[in-house]
Amino acid sequence: EIVLEIERLLAEAPEADAHYLLPDTSRTINAPDLSHSNLFGRHVLVTAGPTHEPIDPVRYIANRSSGKQGFAIAAAAARAGAKVTLVAGPVALPTPPGVTRIDVETAREMFAAVEDALPADVAIMVAAVADWRAADEAPQKLKKDGTGLPHPLALAENPDILATLGASNRRPGLLIGFAAETEKVVEHATAKRAKKNADWIVANDVSGNVMGGERNTIHLVTATGVESWPDMPKADVAARLIERIADELAGG
Amino acid sequence: EIVLEIERLLAEAPEADAHYLLPDTSRTINAPDLSHSNLFGRHVLVTAGPTHEPIDPVRYIANRSSGKQGFAIAAAAARAGAKVTLVAGPVALPTPPGVTRIDVETAREMFAAVEDALPADVAIMVAAVADWRAADEAPQKLKKDGTGLPHPLALAENPDILATLGASNRRPGLLIGFAAETEKVVEHATAKRAKKNADWIVANDVSGNVMGGERNTIHLVTATGVESWPDMPKADVAARLIERIADELAGG
Repeated sequence: EIVLEIERLLAEAPEADAHYLLPDTSRTINAPDLSHSNLFGRHVLVTAGPTHEPIDPVRYIANRSSGKQGFAIAAAAARAGAKVTLVAGPVALPTPPGVTRIDVETAREMFAAVEDALPADVAIMVAAVADWRAADEAPQKLKKDGTGLPHPLALAENPDILATLGASNRRPGLLIGFAAETEKVVEHATAKRAKKNADWIVANDVSGNVMGGERNTIHLVTATGVESWPDMPKADVAARLIERIADELAGG
Repeated sequence: EIVLEIERLLAEAPEADAHYLLPDTSRTINAPDLSHSNLFGRHVLVTAGPTHEPIDPVRYIANRSSGKQGFAIAAAAARAGAKVTLVAGPVALPTPPGVTRIDVETAREMFAAVEDALPADVAIMVAAVADWRAADEAPQKLKKDGTGLPHPLALAENPDILATLGASNRRPGLLIGFAAETEKVVEHATAKRAKKNADWIVANDVSGNVMGGERNTIHLVTATGVESWPDMPKADVAARLIERIADELAGG
């Protein structure tokens, strides 16, 4: 993992730095022929990461999400030949090769970036979007001395990006949502699929150590039922999901 | 910066990895003689980073703080020969050499870790501790369907670590607080110094790009007045502050 991290940094390094560190960085890259992939040239829109909802200039409400699963899916889609737009909340992850990344902070910014990125053949909404934001964002830091934060904190509901796409006349042909649950995982995901007019819901149980970790155990809820996948690395979840999408686009 | 980052990774790499990347990693280290430093052997307690206050298993309230300034201060204190305890909120930073690090998430955990670390000769409270937490942490993810998050969100006040230390019979001999302000910076800091019974307050204006950045512009508020330092890298703020502390301990 350290070697991979160093290779990533070398890839980002100005040429002079890279040469200083490793004089011989020549490589042969054999690009695979992707023109027969069912995803070749398709526009795949992915959201990833959390959103941060400001309370004042120094405080915010956030969701626990490392962005790793969404970034892995964007990377896998690009490897399969898709044109990938990745709308990313605040995370510390490098942009996968071949992916167009748009950084946002709040749910409302993510919503606007998703709308700007349409039309898309496939949309995979992986981001852990905050359901609520502070009803009033304070322009100055709130103080404890009585002039400050109202007790309790008034909240407003954020736009529901998945449901809006599901009801849109620009709805992507294949619309996939994610559901992070801590209980009744499949039950909640099945209800979410119907309510949001999504084609698939990828549900996972986040009551353990999934968030920030490298592995994931998911249930794929479709019109025909529920597939429960074994625990596997997030990169493998991504590759398998992209395979399933390619099959679906082929009418499979 | 990339070169420094790679050197850091190499320093952390298992020996085999390091040799694979750079066969010749031999170095000569000339450790300075610190036994005459005024900080030599003194216990310096530093807090750094934000705290995260859970609302439910996936949501939390946070402060914007990268932890960089606090980690730089801990590193500078260790270089000056002090025994350093660093109580760190959730940040993605490596532990400075020679520093004992205790990771915490919430303000209450930080408070407990600080109390456990006493006594200290010097305490430098750099962390951006959340003033408020959710009054009730939900055991399951809150839903939007009416069974969920109360509107509005009830908040409870967190313990005030600096004020508690200031009033404690185990008060460190030199107690230093930080004040991140967006307006009336020196005025708020001067009031905070008196109210918390701190010796010094290091105040900075965070209305710009300080948080997460590499530079800082601070005002040092003491019993005798206010020193306004020029804008400089956070590492330089740290070095200069540690010098000032060493002078103070010498009766300076």
